[in-house]
Amino acid sequence: MQEPRLQTDDLWWMSRKERYIRACERGELFVKIVRENNIPFEERYPLELLLGEDLFILLHDVMFAPTLMNLADEEQQGWWLQKALNYDILGTYAQTELTHGSNVRGIKTTAEYEENLFEEGGWHIHTPSLEAVKWWPGGLGKSCNCCILMARVIIKGKDYGPHPFFFQVRDWETHASLPGIELRDIGAKLGYNGMDNGAMRISHVNIPRRNMLMKFVIVEKDGAYRKVGDDKMLFGTMTYTRLKISSGAGFNLAKAVTSTIRYSAVRRQFQMQRVVLGADIDNHLDDDEKDALASQDQLKLLVKPSKRTEAQVLDYSSQQFIIFPQLALAFAMHFAGQEAGKAYDAALLEFRASKFDALTEMHVLTSTLKAVSTVLMADGMEQCRKCMGGHGFLNAAGVGPQYLSALPQATYEGDFVVLSIQVGQQLLNAVSSKMMKGKKSNPKTPSLQYIYEYDPAKPSLPPKAAELDSLLQNHDFLMAALKSRANYIHFTSAQTFQEEVAAQGKMGAETLDTVKIELMRMTYAHAYVLYSDFFKKRLTELETQSPRVASVLKLVFELFCLTVMDQSYDRGGGFGDFVAAGVLPHNGQGQLLRRIKQLLKDIRPHAVPLVDGWNIPDFLLNSVLGRYDGRVYESLYESTRNEPLNETDISEGYYKHLQYLLHPERRRDEAAAARAAPAPSATPPGRL
Amino acid sequence: MQEPRLQTDDLWWMSRKERYIRACERGELFVKIVRENNIPFEERYPLELLLGEDLFILLHDVMFAPTLMNLADEEQQGWWLQKALNYDILGTYAQTELTHGSNVRGIKTTAEYEENLFEEGGWHIHTPSLEAVKWWPGGLGKSCNCCILMARVIIKGKDYGPHPFFFQVRDWETHASLPGIELRDIGAKLGYNGMDNGAMRISHVNIPRRNMLMKFVIVEKDGAYRKVGDDKMLFGTMTYTRLKISSGAGFNLAKAVTSTIRYSAVRRQFQMQRVVLGADIDNHLDDDEKDALASQDQLKLLVKPSKRTEAQVLDYSSQQFIIFPQLALAFAMHFAGQEAGKAYDAALLEFRASKFDALTEMHVLTSTLKAVSTVLMADGMEQCRKCMGGHGFLNAAGVGPQYLSALPQATYEGDFVVLSIQVGQQLLNAVSSKMMKGKKSNPKTPSLQYIYEYDPAKPSLPPKAAELDSLLQNHDFLMAALKSRANYIHFTSAQTFQEEVAAQGKMGAETLDTVKIELMRMTYAHAYVLYSDFFKKRLTELETQSPRVASVLKLVFELFCLTVMDQSYDRGGGFGDFVAAGVLPHNGQGQLLRRIKQLLKDIRPHAVPLVDGWNIPDFLLNSVLGRYDGRVYESLYESTRNEPLNETDISEGYYKHLQYLLHPERRRDEAAAARAAPAPSATPPGRL
Repeated sequence: MQEPRLQTDDLWWMSRKERYIRACERGELFVKIVRENNIPFEERYPLELLLGEDLFILLHDVMFAPTLMNLADEEQQGWWLQKALNYDILGTYAQTELTHGSNVRGIKTTAEYEENLFEEGGWHIHTPSLEAVKWWPGGLGKSCNCCILMARVIIKGKDYGPHPFFFQVRDWETHASLPGIELRDIGAKLGYNGMDNGAMRISHVNIPRRNMLMKFVIVEKDGAYRKVGDDKMLFGTMTYTRLKISSGAGFNLAKAVTSTIRYSAVRRQFQMQRVVLGADIDNHLDDDEKDALASQDQLKLLVKPSKRTEAQVLDYSSQQFIIFPQLALAFAMHFAGQEAGKAYDAALLEFRASKFDALTEMHVLTSTLKAVSTVLMADGMEQCRKCMGGHGFLNAAGVGPQYLSALPQATYEGDFVVLSIQVGQQLLNAVSSKMMKGKKSNPKTPSLQYIYEYDPAKPSLPPKAAELDSLLQNHDFLMAALKSRANYIHFTSAQTFQEEVAAQGKMGAETLDTVKIELMRMTYAHAYVLYSDFFKKRLTELETQSPRVASVLKLVFELFCLTVMDQSYDRGGGFGDFVAAGVLPHNGQGQLLRRIKQLLKDIRPHAVPLVDGWNIPDFLLNSVLGRYDGRVYESLYESTRNEPLNETDISEGYYKHLQYLLHPERRRDEAAAARAAPAPSATPPGRL
Repeated sequence: MQEPRLQTDDLWWMSRKERYIRACERGELFVKIVRENNIPFEERYPLELLLGEDLFILLHDVMFAPTLMNLADEEQQGWWLQKALNYDILGTYAQTELTHGSNVRGIKTTAEYEENLFEEGGWHIHTPSLEAVKWWPGGLGKSCNCCILMARVIIKGKDYGPHPFFFQVRDWETHASLPGIELRDIGAKLGYNGMDNGAMRISHVNIPRRNMLMKFVIVEKDGAYRKVGDDKMLFGTMTYTRLKISSGAGFNLAKAVTSTIRYSAVRRQFQMQRVVLGADIDNHLDDDEKDALASQDQLKLLVKPSKRTEAQVLDYSSQQFIIFPQLALAFAMHFAGQEAGKAYDAALLEFRASKFDALTEMHVLTSTLKAVSTVLMADGMEQCRKCMGGHGFLNAAGVGPQYLSALPQATYEGDFVVLSIQVGQQLLNAVSSKMMKGKKSNPKTPSLQYIYEYDPAKPSLPPKAAELDSLLQNHDFLMAALKSRANYIHFTSAQTFQEEVAAQGKMGAETLDTVKIELMRMTYAHAYVLYSDFFKKRLTELETQSPRVASVLKLVFELFCLTVMDQSYDRGGGFGDFVAAGVLPHNGQGQLLRRIKQLLKDIRPHAVPLVDGWNIPDFLLNSVLGRYDGRVYESLYESTRNEPLNETDISEGYYKHLQYLLHPERRRDEAAAARAAPAPSATPPGRL
């Protein structure tokens, strides 16, 4: 911590205003560092994650600047892009309206073309109703002075649908909102309160014709509208944003898991130094632990449970059963995010060369991971918080406020339901192109290949109980089981869908609605296939790169797969699905749970080293309970100094109200005194 | 809203200090109403729920006063009880310490008896270490001037364990904390911030001998310690508190369900008046709907979906699939809380007459409901919040802050894990007294009777597919299915436990730890048996009292049971358990889901009338999205006026930081100016 302004330990006690000012300070600091060190645009995102606060810069870097890169033509980029990359202007992405979020085609803000505006023609931008007020864009309330505005293009009465515009909202010099533009912060949220999510109402504002981004669509001065090349990139910003969101999910969960595991182990850490240091280490450790000790240099964590004191919570199987699957999930989501990022980078090069073969694959991949990872991340963080007991409810524990700030990720840019409908339809398509058209593969969607390889006419038979124990340790079996289960869900859902179509005699939006529950289940099942494949890929690489690490992560991988098979991370499916799919015997739950319990025991000695290995600094964990040094209770007690209520012993609430509750006669006495004399002086201060 | 001080619509934007002062104002108002109307103690709890804020009065009424009633002897009650009932003193219950919550026997605060203190002997109270600091008691930080203090009694070196004391903490007149007593608020929490949860450090404070509550334990002047009658009531406050907590769970969930269902239907409500009012009602409604119309007088809600506009979210099966099971759960938990309350009232009369036959039944009943209802309530409220989409993340939507304020209920007074271990052991006892001792019943635990009636040697066979459709509508089948599933879990878990005992050759705390996961699953399964039994009992009563209501609630009851069978409300179990228990065929998931979908459709027209029927006033919902009048978007937009950031167009953050980010030269210019001239004046204010 060489930079004092990165202090975060006062964050959880701030008022909304104080937090926003802190966010502005962080923004200034971030830009200063970027400028002084000439940090290229591509390398700024990890730096942002280190700021310890959510702020307008995020939208500027993830949505505003990339949209200019992807959708502005060369001349337009010359006007705006360099300024954006250098933060001489601050932008955001204004698409969502009060009544339209995910459904971009429904937005109502209008951009009417008028040839006689300005010299070269212009756009008349307007918010036609309350419902069309822009609502949610991060940074739009107070911070940004411009944005990408999505508005419905109307030329000579014809509606061309939503298009992106470069739109200035505040004066470059004074920062005052421009005439005709009303800007507000949309108010306190459950979390994410460093961000000034904004509302914007536009009253008849004119902007030049060339403020529409014209890489793929051109509107001439005479109002002629034409497309240039392929406009598939027009909404590509959303795909990129979904990728970025899902890439961060593993890290967010990892923070919560780190704090929870450390807190659950902390008193044992204290005890260790007393019990184990010194000559009798050999008497206290078994061979496995000595190995781990040699490899980890983590003396404090490697002691056998002592019977002389209360057991520590991390040794309870109930605690392990909740936390360790979250540890496994954090790895799974992190690996999936990284692998999807690599695939996207490759695809982006093709897209920019107007080759769009990988478009569906990228859409399904990023939508699945965005939909599922954000929900599992939020659930997992809350599970971790609950595992910290009562103290976990304090802001000082860190996990709670971080969970709340991560929550909107499950909603914005397409929530689980919306995305699962899109993903589910692609999965249905794959099933139907196999079943109806006999296709054996679709080279454009390699991640759906397992669907083409499934034969629903040959249902698998569940293994016998005698074989099951060893199969549950067989990675090929585990991965095949997740795929068979997914295929069972996909193919039975497709059949239900066909029946609905046949019953209704046609296929429409209402037919799709009859299988939405199935589409959600398909999306979850598909996500687990992706996670396990990506996880196994990384595990295989590690087996040569770092066999020691791989030998531990192997256990974590197995726990991930078995958790899906036992009860699932989500609420749908789990064991019942696997029985129905013929992958597990109906009486196999006992064996499954026994293996899980063994894995929990095996992972236990590695749990703290694993999270310490993530090396997340204390200022980012921002948790008195998750501190690396384990000084939990002192820190917790000290943290109360941050609470404004503790500035005085006797609070204002006593002078204003409590004293009259306890001593109602004082109210009467004061009233009598007021009649007899001038108004009483101000409330006396409490003593310090 | 005749009482202006019950305004709540500014609550979600307040700073911590402002909220605490508001809580004090509500406290004063509450006591004024109680005094002016002579409201008896027993009738005050519902009034507290109407205050729209969590405050110190709750602890005073639910824990402080009842403890005096139950554990103080007659003379002591004469000193303190009347004052407490009249709020001349304000108390709380100080048991939890920084390192000991649920495990009361582990608390470390000491009360050493000294015969020569005062005239009649006294106690030397002390906090021996940081770990022993009292931590969490509601109202202890700033509001209360006394408490029930749990401290470890030590007489002549002998430790008698924790006992309750009446303990003054603040001056009756000035409210200053007393010498030797350090009080603090424990700081900002995720929610529940009207409550001043406190920390207390006691440094060598002496109190009279008779400040120990002596109804069941007497310590004489010479230090003689003796029990009087049966001291089973000593920790009875916890049982009562658990009952109160679980009784409120259904109401909390009902609030969230109301807001979510109204918001999901709101635009259709608007449309109805246009579409249906007038003479052509007959053309738009089918017979069922006309019936409902006649019975409900809820014209606006009863229209068929129109194809002329966008579908409303409440018509999507995906939305119904998430919300309606929460509607069902709210009823189930509410009925269970009420029935448990009746049983407890009856038992309490026996307890006060020193008859303790019902003790185990009450312990298992309140522990099961407390453990499961609070977890399902919290999960359900968050599901409802997510169903409100992006706007649900705003405090203005109400459900979020309410969810966060309800969250600690899942943790305090025994969290799920701690209670499930207690419940699970009782369930294991029942299994073993049946299997080992051949008992056919235990009259002291009627709610466990179903365990005695189960024969694990005769496993049930799953019904055939052809029978299943009608069985899924058969209430006897549904209830029997929940019981068979629970018994399957109980008996297989008991077997696993026996195997562990046999393997380890003994039974200790570590043996119990090996089945903690099973104990959790047993507790869930048992809770669903209780819910469905209580629900069915009320349904049967309603069938004669109000057949119309019963005909709708019947659907809700079925949905409740089928949701447990399909995927469970919790994460463990669901369909797989029922297959393993032989209750459902392994390929029955499709039929189950089909029936659920039909129920969702059937419940849809009744959803809004059902929540309107709860009649929860707008000021308690405190949600711009859940308003009875449906003016959602106007209210949402207006709510931004509450946000302090919107007091100015240009924020302080701009003047302090953003301007230097956008115009770095200003920093240099100012530095130059500062060298040339005196310090610049204060930050200029933003324009209004």
